[in-house]
Amino acid sequence: MNNLLKCELLRDAMQERGANMALKTSDEYLDRLKRMKPNVYTNGKKIGRDHPILEKPINVLRLTFDLAQDPQYQDLMVMKSHLTGEPINRFTALNLSIEDLYKQQEMKRKLCHKVGGCIQRCMATDTLNAIGVTTKEIDDAKGTEYHTRFIEFLKYYQSNDLVGSTSQTDAKGDRKARPSQQKDPDLYLRIVKKNREGIVVRGAKIHITMGPYVDEHLIIPTRGLTEKEGDWAVSFAVPADADNIKVISRVTSPRPRINLKAPYNNYGVAESFLIFDNVFVPWERVFMCGEWEFAGPMAITFAGFHRHSYCGCKPALTDIIMGAAALVAEYSGVGNAPHIQDELTELAIIGELVYASGIAAAARAEKTASGIYKPKFLYSNTGRYLAGINVYHEYEILTSIAGGLPSTLPPEEDWLNPDLSHYLEKYIRRNPEVSSEKVHRLFRFISDFTCSASCGWAQYAGIHGGGSPVMEKIGIRSTYDFGSKKEIVKYLAGIKD
Amino acid sequence: MNNLLKCELLRDAMQERGANMALKTSDEYLDRLKRMKPNVYTNGKKIGRDHPILEKPINVLRLTFDLAQDPQYQDLMVMKSHLTGEPINRFTALNLSIEDLYKQQEMKRKLCHKVGGCIQRCMATDTLNAIGVTTKEIDDAKGTEYHTRFIEFLKYYQSNDLVGSTSQTDAKGDRKARPSQQKDPDLYLRIVKKNREGIVVRGAKIHITMGPYVDEHLIIPTRGLTEKEGDWAVSFAVPADADNIKVISRVTSPRPRINLKAPYNNYGVAESFLIFDNVFVPWERVFMCGEWEFAGPMAITFAGFHRHSYCGCKPALTDIIMGAAALVAEYSGVGNAPHIQDELTELAIIGELVYASGIAAAARAEKTASGIYKPKFLYSNTGRYLAGINVYHEYEILTSIAGGLPSTLPPEEDWLNPDLSHYLEKYIRRNPEVSSEKVHRLFRFISDFTCSASCGWAQYAGIHGGGSPVMEKIGIRSTYDFGSKKEIVKYLAGIKD
Amino acid sequence: MNNLLKCELLRDAMQERGANMALKTSDEYLDRLKRMKPNVYTNGKKIGRDHPILEKPINVLRLTFDLAQDPQYQDLMVMKSHLTGEPINRFTALNLSIEDLYKQQEMKRKLCHKVGGCIQRCMATDTLNAIGVTTKEIDDAKGTEYHTRFIEFLKYYQSNDLVGSTSQTDAKGDRKARPSQQKDPDLYLRIVKKNREGIVVRGAKIHITMGPYVDEHLIIPTRGLTEKEGDWAVSFAVPADADNIKVISRVTSPRPRINLKAPYNNYGVAESFLIFDNVFVPWERVFMCGEWEFAGPMAITFAGFHRHSYCGCKPALTDIIMGAAALVAEYSGVGNAPHIQDELTELAIIGELVYASGIAAAARAEKTASGIYKPKFLYSNTGRYLAGINVYHEYEILTSIAGGLPSTLPPEEDWLNPDLSHYLEKYIRRNPEVSSEKVHRLFRFISDFTCSASCGWAQYAGIHGGGSPVMEKIGIRSTYDFGSKKEIVKYLAGIKD
Amino acid sequence: MNNLLKCELLRDAMQERGANMALKTSDEYLDRLKRMKPNVYTNGKKIGRDHPILEKPINVLRLTFDLAQDPQYQDLMVMKSHLTGEPINRFTALNLSIEDLYKQQEMKRKLCHKVGGCIQRCMATDTLNAIGVTTKEIDDAKGTEYHTRFIEFLKYYQSNDLVGSTSQTDAKGDRKARPSQQKDPDLYLRIVKKNREGIVVRGAKIHITMGPYVDEHLIIPTRGLTEKEGDWAVSFAVPADADNIKVISRVTSPRPRINLKAPYNNYGVAESFLIFDNVFVPWERVFMCGEWEFAGPMAITFAGFHRHSYCGCKPALTDIIMGAAALVAEYSGVGNAPHIQDELTELAIIGELVYASGIAAAARAEKTASGIYKPKFLYSNTGRYLAGINVYHEYEILTSIAGGLPSTLPPEEDWLNPDLSHYLEKYIRRNPEVSSEKVHRLFRFISDFTCSASCGWAQYAGIHGGGSPVMEKIGIRSTYDFGSKKEIVKYLAGIKD
Repeated sequence: MNNLLKCELLRDAMQERGANMALKTSDEYLDRLKRMKPNVYTNGKKIGRDHPILEKPINVLRLTFDLAQDPQYQDLMVMKSHLTGEPINRFTALNLSIEDLYKQQEMKRKLCHKVGGCIQRCMATDTLNAIGVTTKEIDDAKGTEYHTRFIEFLKYYQSNDLVGSTSQTDAKGDRKARPSQQKDPDLYLRIVKKNREGIVVRGAKIHITMGPYVDEHLIIPTRGLTEKEGDWAVSFAVPADADNIKVISRVTSPRPRINLKAPYNNYGVAESFLIFDNVFVPWERVFMCGEWEFAGPMAITFAGFHRHSYCGCKPALTDIIMGAAALVAEYSGVGNAPHIQDELTELAIIGELVYASGIAAAARAEKTASGIYKPKFLYSNTGRYLAGINVYHEYEILTSIAGGLPSTLPPEEDWLNPDLSHYLEKYIRRNPEVSSEKVHRLFRFISDFTCSASCGWAQYAGIHGGGSPVMEKIGIRSTYDFGSKKEIVKYLAGIKD
Repeated sequence: MNNLLKCELLRDAMQERGANMALKTSDEYLDRLKRMKPNVYTNGKKIGRDHPILEKPINVLRLTFDLAQDPQYQDLMVMKSHLTGEPINRFTALNLSIEDLYKQQEMKRKLCHKVGGCIQRCMATDTLNAIGVTTKEIDDAKGTEYHTRFIEFLKYYQSNDLVGSTSQTDAKGDRKARPSQQKDPDLYLRIVKKNREGIVVRGAKIHITMGPYVDEHLIIPTRGLTEKEGDWAVSFAVPADADNIKVISRVTSPRPRINLKAPYNNYGVAESFLIFDNVFVPWERVFMCGEWEFAGPMAITFAGFHRHSYCGCKPALTDIIMGAAALVAEYSGVGNAPHIQDELTELAIIGELVYASGIAAAARAEKTASGIYKPKFLYSNTGRYLAGINVYHEYEILTSIAGGLPSTLPPEEDWLNPDLSHYLEKYIRRNPEVSSEKVHRLFRFISDFTCSASCGWAQYAGIHGGGSPVMEKIGIRSTYDFGSKKEIVKYLAGIKD
Repeated sequence: MNNLLKCELLRDAMQERGANMALKTSDEYLDRLKRMKPNVYTNGKKIGRDHPILEKPINVLRLTFDLAQDPQYQDLMVMKSHLTGEPINRFTALNLSIEDLYKQQEMKRKLCHKVGGCIQRCMATDTLNAIGVTTKEIDDAKGTEYHTRFIEFLKYYQSNDLVGSTSQTDAKGDRKARPSQQKDPDLYLRIVKKNREGIVVRGAKIHITMGPYVDEHLIIPTRGLTEKEGDWAVSFAVPADADNIKVISRVTSPRPRINLKAPYNNYGVAESFLIFDNVFVPWERVFMCGEWEFAGPMAITFAGFHRHSYCGCKPALTDIIMGAAALVAEYSGVGNAPHIQDELTELAIIGELVYASGIAAAARAEKTASGIYKPKFLYSNTGRYLAGINVYHEYEILTSIAGGLPSTLPPEEDWLNPDLSHYLEKYIRRNPEVSSEKVHRLFRFISDFTCSASCGWAQYAGIHGGGSPVMEKIGIRSTYDFGSKKEIVKYLAGIKD
Repeated sequence: MNNLLKCELLRDAMQERGANMALKTSDEYLDRLKRMKPNVYTNGKKIGRDHPILEKPINVLRLTFDLAQDPQYQDLMVMKSHLTGEPINRFTALNLSIEDLYKQQEMKRKLCHKVGGCIQRCMATDTLNAIGVTTKEIDDAKGTEYHTRFIEFLKYYQSNDLVGSTSQTDAKGDRKARPSQQKDPDLYLRIVKKNREGIVVRGAKIHITMGPYVDEHLIIPTRGLTEKEGDWAVSFAVPADADNIKVISRVTSPRPRINLKAPYNNYGVAESFLIFDNVFVPWERVFMCGEWEFAGPMAITFAGFHRHSYCGCKPALTDIIMGAAALVAEYSGVGNAPHIQDELTELAIIGELVYASGIAAAARAEKTASGIYKPKFLYSNTGRYLAGINVYHEYEILTSIAGGLPSTLPPEEDWLNPDLSHYLEKYIRRNPEVSSEKVHRLFRFISDFTCSASCGWAQYAGIHGGGSPVMEKIGIRSTYDFGSKKEIVKYLAGIKD
């Protein structure tokens, strides 16, 4: 059965199922965004969610809907909801087996290839799984009903094919002080009121990817808390345009192209300061409220899932860097030079070791009380760590192989100037088998990808997204069994305690 | 059921089964060695296999028999032969599932902990698996009967719980010249005669671990060959004391102890030049004879299995280095210093990433025509590579944390001199909670482990055993799909071919 | 005598000396630029040299004039010309002693601090010194008069306090082919005609820093040549607006500020493709014409001087990265955290080792036949190499310490929006002792410095400017005395040839 | 004038000057050792200083006498004493100019080449210079007479061409506790009595190189002290066989050779625990006694000088490793392989950067109140640091290039066994142009140099000798001007305090 046929059958099936179909189209997603109350700000102005500056970032999310409709990606992206039995987008799913974890990792790698960077939507997937795991633990320990509430919310989320943010990082203020020690208690988001209908929260969540184009904000704690810090132990979901939320955003997109269109330049990202100035959340959307002992576990569980995601997406970035390096070497006629071969192999090793660590995390995953499989966090951490310490090194390799041209390439406009174009085409030529246009396209891509504000964003995301290498080290150190290693040495050395 | 009881039941079962029992004792292994014709040389003399200089190396192999009798290790070390149905030592088994590969890796890590280094016996396991895979491929392609022969040989090997060497590396002579281009054709081991009974071979295999204390030498090719190089395409098994074999050995064992006994010092290793001066091999023991196209594949298949083994054993070495570093820091009273915690975590990350790469290799293993599962060699290679490039760095960390004492510690004899002992005990004291004896034992262990000929051996083995990092890079580079990465970039950059 | 007084005395002295004064003001430099014939292109348009887009790059050069008038910098920046006896700007001087080389290095470090990056003008200094050394060598070997011509040109250059480019890198085309093997011979700039008045050249020089705002282009060869390649062996000086030159430029400047003015954002850089489409050069400005044996030496001599310059400027970059990292740690309240102290020290070590290598290059400098001291190129190379391999690593350290904020900081406009400013000020607060404005200013600087197109430019310049690390390795390898090292080992090992 | 003639003239000159000649012969040195009271222990026994086990270590010191008599080394090794006007061995000299520091560094590099490792005698040179600098500072601050005493002692030391140890490192006990906080106060050597004749000290100095074959022990403090710790603030010189000193030694020498003699195997080293059990020191040999404020400065000043020495000796080690790697590649026929060329160049860069840092330390040296020039310690530290972090990496490179043979090479005895020698010679052959004997000699050298207890000693010495990398980081961090770097950034960012 060819792909086209598959595609038609799918469409038929979708039409039959009509409005109940849980797989939404990217247009439906766009419509939802347009209908939201404006509370997004950037460059000093309040804007609607259909403002052109958001188009490129939104294109990334659109792709996650479009490919779910593409027969070639169905197996990877569509699965049956264990809650409703409907086909759902894997980005909205819980991981209920080792195989699910393998697929998550593979999906992320493949989709990042398509946008030349972060696919963004996995943030929510990992947050949902973390809330799923931890609410069950709270309920088991405390007799609460958070997990039931969460499952209800998840049905709604899956059925509507929603997009959520991960709103975790607080402003944090003085890094030496705990939440309860800050001069301004709002520097960590906190509960300021509770009543029969729900809770009211105040604070900010910062570095929030996708802020202006999610349906829902998913809030989870940023760190472990002490007994006195129950007010900061809060998790909930809130519509992105709820009252008293402000989304102050910085949009980063590749330089625009004039004639030289390229898929890479169609995508972008927005980061936000989310301001919560006394925001009301009804109880059915609250997943933790005061259970301070579980703030740390929920934070760590999210990190463990999200670092597993990195084991899928970071190899994709490495793939792109590797492909660009290989291609520029080929176009320059030095594809077989030993030191280039060596550096390409180094990239392959980095990418595949990160990916292998993700496979191992899945292969050694543990079924939690909630039924969700959590990857072995040790290997989530080692994979994310290795990725993190190599981010800048990978750019270094590409820069080194590409030569200086990406930083000195005259603007596209000069290529369109008939007084200049023949000179530029003449002098950019390298391997005589490769047209000037191809060389030009490749170097402009590398320039946009490595010598731009977009690159800066990617470098920061590569270090800090999901936790910087120092955080993985802490994650590993705090649970690793060093004691058993000492025992091995005592045995070998003949030391008896 | 306690372990002692389990142990007794096992012994009963063994006695019932009598002589047919395929799990042999270490004494039975020793007896076999004693009965062999003397052809081992070291320090200028021909010695018997019961010479004291071989005791420590042989202790390593004895352990692989003893632990198979120990209920605590049964699950890991004993399995049912798919050929005979009998319980066999896992070191003699083929890997017939992903689970088998997981177990192999785990067994190696645990056993290396017990001897403070290389467990050695896995060499043969990996060689048998490689011969198993490749003989089937030859037979399928050529209509030969190598695989059947091999299976018969394997039954014999399993039933007698034998120990084999991996005799792969040739002398190689001029590194710029291929086997057929060497001035002296024997610089790669080759077939010099064939007749109805079998073949006669000449050459040397060098760097052969366990040379003086194996039952069988398992010979496989060292590299890919060309059509004209059929004479060098040879694989076979031969009893270790067959006529015209000479085993010229270098034995490396830790410094002996006087009173301060320690398990680590009971083990050792021997490396050998194996000289084949017209050795006859009957056809039933020949597994490749002229099929030059399969020389490379057999060599690479062995490497792929053996590098997977490294993903088990090298983390064990890292565990020991980590344990020693953690313990010396504790005894010096600085176990919690941030830079020490950081370095210990770095060791944990190295060890666990190597292990994770092994898990991924197993999780992504492929069933071959022979029924044997071969690990995904990409991940065997990445794991072994990461281990290899960190060998010296790991010693550096331990040396750095241990301080200079392992290199300046007066000999044990001085501790036994009553004029000196009280001074030495007084001035070696560190953390007042830890006795001088413990500190002394620990530093003597670190001295023997890191500042000794044994350490030199381990450093070389860590770099070159199973193929040095540059070999893994070649292994990866030669099969990695760089083309698909270029396609990703062409897509993103809008380049159309 | 206070600085103000010194300054006045200097101005008086300058006025007395009138038009002959060789130290020009930055306004005089600007006037020269304005008077030039327009041949600069960027963003598709031909522009005058007073176009606003060039203002920030030109500010860098202006500073090199202004500080030469500042008593605090006089000792460093002003020296007596050995040709005219007049005080001249050190950027126009030959290095006639070890002390001169020390001063060059120090001047570059101090000036780069002022612009937050490359001071640019040293390009010409190093080119003039290289032409000075090599023309003397040609004359001595061939009986030509290049050196005399050059000295005459230099007098003119010094007396007018000119700014020159280094126009070295050719388009190079197919990297596997030599100049004479290219399909298009113009891919290396070449002599197409000679007559009694001078020569005519065609080709392009690319990656030319300062292209749109120099007085003169200084052309030198890019590589070693063979006997058949005399047409490519050419060096000369040409006014920047000479007929048939086109300067196609890419300008990179930090993001503009609205209210939050900062010196860093006042500076920028332009890179250019310089097109020579049959450009005439009179003989008195030609410094090499066909002497192919000296193309390599002139190229290498420039590299040797310029890599010595890098030993001054790259530590300045490290200083800035170090200062930013130290300050952000202080403002976040974690200035004394051990891992931060450790990384700051690592930066200090990198910067100071690079600087030390420059000092050693000067201390071991050699007086050439021209009288010019050339630094020991071995140490120019080792210093530049160490700088090059640490460029990305240094950014990694700063990114790691700064956290994600530089990539997520909302635009300055949002700070000016009264609906948002109090939120942003509230939530950016860290160490309570440090005002929000300071934190904001610091993070905006780090954002502009590390997460921007400017950063991309700096990363590329750090790798490739003056030759990438692989070029230094080649430079070192090709002259290093490995033979003597082998002899040491032969002696120790008792090997007799 | 040829060398032989020079040599004779020197001898004549020496004979003329008779007994007053301050340059002693190595036999005179040996005679002194023989005459000393036995207090050396090793392997459980008290031995005389003429015991054969000490021969190889003593050979190192002998060389420092012999080469001072060799015209080829005179310029480097002999200088005029500023105290007596006599020619003295540079190892006994103070550094009174930048040129002296350049020469010290060069001498160490050249002499280390001759012994294949540490030349040892520089320990005392650096200690004498440190005592010289600090005693002057104490006298200037306190009105004491330590410097005068020291100068008298130095005249004696120079006139007799003595050899001294650096006895600095205390036992140190609990690393968390200061000297005054140790349970046992002797864990740092201390003054237990003072009277009119002198002082009595108790404690141990450990890791003392040359313990059994020095004339004098030179004692200096190990660390900074507080006001209450005056008893530990002590510096003095004491004859090596003074009453109540015990020298408990560990001797490390290369494996002995039978027929295959090689200079490398003639040298060795001894490390010692020096026990001071109530040792009396007369006042004229006491250079600090209670001035706790100067304990830290004396320790740091020694470190600064000694790390400058490392900038001379460590490049020599790198030279040897580089030479061995280059030679083994040549003998194997792969000397021109790109990855080998690359690694050789990496070694060259490491060695030369360390050396360059030493040159810079000398070029920026400062004249102290004592007249002694002290190198700029920042650059002593950066050079020693770079050396330290590359020790293991350098061995890694050599091991990687050498292949496994150094760890599997059969013992020399097997080469002497006529049944085996022709096999071994046949199969060790590589490049057909190079004899088996040369290959054998080279691999045996590499085996002894890198796969032996000697190698272990060298690795530890490379990390810890003169202070491990972490100590240099502390040394740099504690004095580096980070504040000025912050000011640069405040300026650039527009931050006003």
